[in-house]
Amino acid sequence: MLTLYYSPNACSVASHIALEDAGAEYEARKVDFGSDQQKSAGYLEINPKARVPALVTPRGVLTETPAMLAFIAQSFPEAKLAPLDDPFAFAEMQSFNSYLCSTVHVAHAHRGRGSRWADDEASFADMRRKVPQTVTACFELIESRMLKGPWVMGDTYTVADPYLFTVAQWLEIDGVDISRFPRVIDHRSRMREMPNVKKAIAEEMAV
Amino acid sequence: MLTLYYSPNACSVASHIALEDAGAEYEARKVDFGSDQQKSAGYLEINPKARVPALVTPRGVLTETPAMLAFIAQSFPEAKLAPLDDPFAFAEMQSFNSYLCSTVHVAHAHRGRGSRWADDEASFADMRRKVPQTVTACFELIESRMLKGPWVMGDTYTVADPYLFTVAQWLEIDGVDISRFPRVIDHRSRMREMPNVKKAIAEEMAV
Repeated sequence: MLTLYYSPNACSVASHIALEDAGAEYEARKVDFGSDQQKSAGYLEINPKARVPALVTPRGVLTETPAMLAFIAQSFPEAKLAPLDDPFAFAEMQSFNSYLCSTVHVAHAHRGRGSRWADDEASFADMRRKVPQTVTACFELIESRMLKGPWVMGDTYTVADPYLFTVAQWLEIDGVDISRFPRVIDHRSRMREMPNVKKAIAEEMAV
Repeated sequence: MLTLYYSPNACSVASHIALEDAGAEYEARKVDFGSDQQKSAGYLEINPKARVPALVTPRGVLTETPAMLAFIAQSFPEAKLAPLDDPFAFAEMQSFNSYLCSTVHVAHAHRGRGSRWADDEASFADMRRKVPQTVTACFELIESRMLKGPWVMGDTYTVADPYLFTVAQWLEIDGVDISRFPRVIDHRSRMREMPNVKKAIAEEMAV
């Protein structure tokens, strides 16, 4: 049995969808950022990073979306959620996921989380102003070079797909002109119609 | 044959050391950041992200350190550089590497790369002032919770070790009081004495 700690609309929904895709037996538990539950003593015991996602497994707790996505794919090989027998293809998928977490998510985070990296209100405003530009640059690369289509890795759906879907959900809030990214938006639209995606999002919104 | 594109003292040295550890046949090529070679048309063909590292393989180019490290470990299984047959242990290692790339490296980058996320000189100075605090917070977590010892994953050396070594090399430049992190510094000292580490660094410094 696995337990996923999530916050609605956070990057945790990528792992939530992947758990559905894997057919995993799991429980999803909301961490209430509104009441700063991520900083509570109880949650810090689970994840001292005070972030989501966290995945509690019988062997211990895992954090960091790319690692969790690869873990889900490797733990449920029959679901075929990653090219597990091809180190190069697996690395391409992991490279995509690593770019989302270390560059795209970080660019997005400068909109509302400037206090992670600076102290002055003027700096936060400066960072916030630049987010449309930095996130647009990331998605130009994804649109033109990285998203093979129809799925991230080409003909086969992998755990990179729910992760791209997750960060693409933030485009409008980041002030990005989505008309520049028809392939990404087509991918997002197809993902939104998938039963596992609908189920994971409905579960997160219902609590 | 593999070709690694690196810049001295950049995060590319982690993959450089891992290639040595793997016993891989490879060539290392310096990208001269002094002359902005990473933005040249020739290099952008290899890596449109205009960053290092990039690993040219017979199947294509890989970027993003965590993906490259897992690829090296999986491609040279006899070198035993990762727990390849244990999805949970592999995920723990990947979680460590993902934290280094998405949180620790990003915190460090706010010292000299503020223009990635803001436009005003005052913001860059604000970011720079905060780096000792943010990097210290990262290494408190690594020192107390993440570095199992004597190696990152415990008794067995993995590709997480050259990556921790790489980012720990930046502590002094980031204005961090290293006396707070005796376990990390002991790890760094042991890494510095390893023949593969010495060889990779000497090769990067000789060009």
